[in-house]
Amino acid sequence: MPDNIDLKCSHRLTEQIGFIVEMDKLKNILRETRLVFQQRLENDAEHTWHLAMMVMVLAEYANTPDPQTKLDLGKTLQLVLLHDVVEIDAGDVFSYADFDPAEKHHKECLAADRLFNLLPGEQAKHFRDLWNEYEDQQTIEARFARSIDRLQPFLLNYFTNGYTWRKYNITVDRVKNHILRDMKPGSEALWRFVDNILDDAVAKGMLLPEAAEA
Amino acid sequence: MPDNIDLKCSHRLTEQIGFIVEMDKLKNILRETRLVFQQRLENDAEHTWHLAMMVMVLAEYANTPDPQTKLDLGKTLQLVLLHDVVEIDAGDVFSYADFDPAEKHHKECLAADRLFNLLPGEQAKHFRDLWNEYEDQQTIEARFARSIDRLQPFLLNYFTNGYTWRKYNITVDRVKNHILRDMKPGSEALWRFVDNILDDAVAKGMLLPEAAEA
Repeated sequence: MPDNIDLKCSHRLTEQIGFIVEMDKLKNILRETRLVFQQRLENDAEHTWHLAMMVMVLAEYANTPDPQTKLDLGKTLQLVLLHDVVEIDAGDVFSYADFDPAEKHHKECLAADRLFNLLPGEQAKHFRDLWNEYEDQQTIEARFARSIDRLQPFLLNYFTNGYTWRKYNITVDRVKNHILRDMKPGSEALWRFVDNILDDAVAKGMLLPEAAEA
Repeated sequence: MPDNIDLKCSHRLTEQIGFIVEMDKLKNILRETRLVFQQRLENDAEHTWHLAMMVMVLAEYANTPDPQTKLDLGKTLQLVLLHDVVEIDAGDVFSYADFDPAEKHHKECLAADRLFNLLPGEQAKHFRDLWNEYEDQQTIEARFARSIDRLQPFLLNYFTNGYTWRKYNITVDRVKNHILRDMKPGSEALWRFVDNILDDAVAKGMLLPEAAEA
């Protein structure tokens, strides 16, 4: 937000509006995934909306330590809504690209420092805590949020006849390892669903078969 | 979702995935609002993500009957996330267009019938109840959600130098009446904030001055 704008309201609300306007930039961050019903790439804001909707629909499949423990749906929605905003500064990194996870995390922490601190002090800390919770993957909500974050591009790829997988010649074993690591901890049921249709995705030519061992 | 796809999972999960894939169409529904940092119109999925983020940031400004009553944040997020999905069938209607509200509501109810019924029975009912709650405007959560739904395009217009207001020659009294009706019931504080900067928006040429009485 331009520094010279006087919104004629409290300093607190001015900071909050500044953050909200800055968030508009998430709509500019393109991902590698193609939309199902349009020939263009998805952006981070659209992706995040879709995740939040999926959390509402699929909450029953979250792993919990026992049947009495319920997923905190409101908390999970907040984790999902915030998890990618750091990409405003750090950019989107394709899951199957070669990248250094430590460097990615470092860039995203710098982004979190800048972006969340646009908010008033205690709110900045609250939002950062939520973002950290997602990153740390220690709660059932954070784990379920991540499993949904992996399921969504899987579905978009599956329903665009493997658009991104074909573009980058992805082999089925890479997807298998990826979902085993990132979906199973949050949702055994949704991990199993994806794992089950991988052979079909290979048979249809969306994914390459497992690379033969040398 | 094509009828002939076998996802090799339960009928229930197949229906839920079908709904999730159908939801991708919300990314195709363009609004009249322009993005702040890009020369293109916003779509409904981006708009909805932005609203959810705003609810998280601005929840403290919701009208409540007394200081002890707190807004249910998780519920408000769900109302916001669902409120526009009917536009997949019914399309977006510009707030300042001439339209018949009864006809609009009728079309949106037909859309709600079709879309939510893609889900399993009891979940379809739950989602429809949430959508009805937003439409009925009888709870503090539904009212606050609507006030945020009006504040968001206001901010995008204000920070694009009145893009849509200029395009349609909108006068300040129309905005004034609109926010009085749709923002004040949900948030006195945010309504006052917007009302306070309208003169400034006129002075800067974003909005036309009040039409002189005949």
